[in-house]
Amino acid sequence: MKTILVTGANRGIGLAFVRLLARYEPTPAFIFATCRSPDTAKELQDLAATHTHVRILKIDVQNESTYGPAVEAVSSLVGENGLNVLINNAGVFPKDGYEKVTREYLTSIFEINIIGPIRITQAFLPLLKRGARNSKIERFSIERAAVINMASKMGSISLNTSGGAAGSRESKAALNMFTRSLSIELKTDKILVVSQCPGWVSTLNGGPDAPKTPEISVSEMLQIFALYSEEHTGCYLDNQIPLTFSQY
Amino acid sequence: MKTILVTGANRGIGLAFVRLLARYEPTPAFIFATCRSPDTAKELQDLAATHTHVRILKIDVQNESTYGPAVEAVSSLVGENGLNVLINNAGVFPKDGYEKVTREYLTSIFEINIIGPIRITQAFLPLLKRGARNSKIERFSIERAAVINMASKMGSISLNTSGGAAGSRESKAALNMFTRSLSIELKTDKILVVSQCPGWVSTLNGGPDAPKTPEISVSEMLQIFALYSEEHTGCYLDNQIPLTFSQY
Repeated sequence: MKTILVTGANRGIGLAFVRLLARYEPTPAFIFATCRSPDTAKELQDLAATHTHVRILKIDVQNESTYGPAVEAVSSLVGENGLNVLINNAGVFPKDGYEKVTREYLTSIFEINIIGPIRITQAFLPLLKRGARNSKIERFSIERAAVINMASKMGSISLNTSGGAAGSRESKAALNMFTRSLSIELKTDKILVVSQCPGWVSTLNGGPDAPKTPEISVSEMLQIFALYSEEHTGCYLDNQIPLTFSQY
Repeated sequence: MKTILVTGANRGIGLAFVRLLARYEPTPAFIFATCRSPDTAKELQDLAATHTHVRILKIDVQNESTYGPAVEAVSSLVGENGLNVLINNAGVFPKDGYEKVTREYLTSIFEINIIGPIRITQAFLPLLKRGARNSKIERFSIERAAVINMASKMGSISLNTSGGAAGSRESKAALNMFTRSLSIELKTDKILVVSQCPGWVSTLNGGPDAPKTPEISVSEMLQIFALYSEEHTGCYLDNQIPLTFSQY
């Protein structure tokens, strides 16, 4: 992983990714931490101040005009190395039931959790393909190129026995489908595409009762990433070692 | 099935539902055929002219201001009988790959295929609950109350081996999740919620090479509907007898 981009990096799991990647060995060339409001992302600013390979970029998932400048900034820094890893982490998971949700509420969830990841991946795909093409690694590997979509157990249809979270569950099921379809399109490029469940984490989405801190979850996921191989592309993985396929 | 509402009824599978239900035995009290433009829905107008229990109503899935008047019209006609069956049939399935789709394209697919069905179901839920409550049928049955979402094999993540159809596949996976979640919320009301695959049908979405006409598909589905019981609620069914659960 020479170059990595993480969306929604100002808090929770995204911020933990940047924190842990900043001291990852071997040291990445660049960690691009994107968020809606770089100006107020204090923790990211502190990290970037002490780690020159951490770069903060503005991406507002719901505002496509922010995508182009971010792609250009990444492109000019990474050059022929391209981008190795895109972590589609930005997401929401409100939990209202079907009786009360409005169209605006549902639209916002689908924009952030599925349309955004599709469009952001599309925007960075030329850089990911460059990353794969110019990598010395010939096999499917996180070291070559990968798109990692942050999944959720709540996005498993077959495991859904409690309902609720209108729109949130649907958008995460849709994200798993995106993982599957995109993995097929990117097989010839040997770019991994995986839906990765972070476990139940004490973030804004997971709530304070969750058993894992973002740092523990991300520390586990970084170990999991290193084990990804061809058999995992297109799949939805639990946060366990040995790697475990989750049910759709 | 005393009272049935079908969305997207001006063509394809929706129109075939109205045609076959118009001569269904026992004769339903009302078949509500909804579409975007009743004024230009010639086939529906012809059907309504000869079958007084066929009523055409305007619902534009993407325009919520059309929902309220349709709910009121249905409510005033069905009275205490309520609504027995809501068929969320309106849908699109464009087949472009990830490289070319725009945000507008994706937004439109999610609005029509998943946000629309959620919001339309929400709008008609009081009438469906009334239909269930005032039914003489005490068990889960199409004769009591049901929400039927038109699913697609292309919406199965585990069966997806060819990719493509960006947004369309994702939206249908999301629809299966909606079926599952809503079925849980409506279990105490004994309202069935099913994702039903119509098979591969020669419609605008299915294309001319499909082996089934809309009439054949709908004729099969009406036989399948009659077999729905408690074990099928929340499930995704193939278009086969005996009833076969499809994979998510």
